Amino acid sequence: MEILRSAAAAFRDRGFEASGMREIARAVDLTPGALYHYFENKSELLYFCQEYSADRLLEKARDVLRLRSSWEAKLRALVTHHVLCTLDELHGSAAHIEFHALPGERLAKIIAKRDEYEAIVRRVLSGGMKAGEFVRGDPKMLGLAILGAVNWTARWYRPDGGKSPAGIAAEFSNYLVRGLLR
Amino acid sequence: MEILRSAAAAFRDRGFEASGMREIARAVDLTPGALYHYFENKSELLYFCQEYSADRLLEKARDVLRLRSSWEAKLRALVTHHVLCTLDELHGSAAHIEFHALPGERLAKIIAKRDEYEAIVRRVLSGGMKAGEFVRGDPKMLGLAILGAVNWTARWYRPDGGKSPAGIAAEFSNYLVRGLLR
Repeated sequence: MEILRSAAAAFRDRGFEASGMREIARAVDLTPGALYHYFENKSELLYFCQEYSADRLLEKARDVLRLRSSWEAKLRALVTHHVLCTLDELHGSAAHIEFHALPGERLAKIIAKRDEYEAIVRRVLSGGMKAGEFVRGDPKMLGLAILGAVNWTARWYRPDGGKSPAGIAAEFSNYLVRGLLR
Repeated sequence: MEILRSAAAAFRDRGFEASGMREIARAVDLTPGALYHYFENKSELLYFCQEYSADRLLEKARDVLRLRSSWEAKLRALVTHHVLCTLDELHGSAAHIEFHALPGERLAKIIAKRDEYEAIVRRVLSGGMKAGEFVRGDPKMLGLAILGAVNWTARWYRPDGGKSPAGIAAEFSNYLVRGLLR
């Protein structure tokens, strides 16, 4: 996990293309040879970053669906966890959004997980609409607006930027839920 | 301009790294040689895409600041135009968000324009808060949430996806403004 976090931080700071296995190895106190022992290449490292992040998001989203709570509370929990997963777990890495760099078969696996996650977000939105908690709208568009706001944090967040992941999660979930309440 | 649009579409469909000058040339009916006559390389093409997009956004944002209207109307105009600029003008290209691929000096120019644009977004948010139109909050965080939602459209929009840029702009501006209204 420490390796994935360091790789994610490198991808964030320098971009995927510009990050080398050598620097990632140095950041986790491994020789490049030892790093290659675990991960065949940079693309494999990116894949495991993305898989880790997708699995964490999905696991939490499934939990959220089982909550005995209002749809508002469910959506708030989804947004909060998504921000924390993006900013804490993988150091605000753009790793989970750099899709293009993955080879086809692996890309398909990540996309399947992402699709399942997005379907849960839409289910919470349409659930809240049907229950009369949320204003009517297109769950797909609204879900993409929410995911965009949250995923974009990986582009601007810096650990020394003055706002904690928890603070950002609170601000975002308030705002993004508020726009839906009747 | 047609060249920039085609390049933007290629960057969107295949990613910046995977798009070649040769394919871009073919898409605009130029020989690769003729394309190289206008643009030294792919990075230069990306720069002009980004500059074009940044200039359009800034020009409109300055107009919006001069509107004699409510802050709500100003914010709605900003979001609407940003969606249309992202999806129409540059074919929903991720071109304006692929920062890493630019060399230093050009990167700095684009970042300066982007910073000016973001400052205008924050000014509209804090203006609305001071006037009592918007709920209180952190204009920086809220601005980043809005820009994230809108910029992310470049990642998922497809011209054949069933929603027009105008439809997306309406849905997004309704939702993103609604979360701020008192």
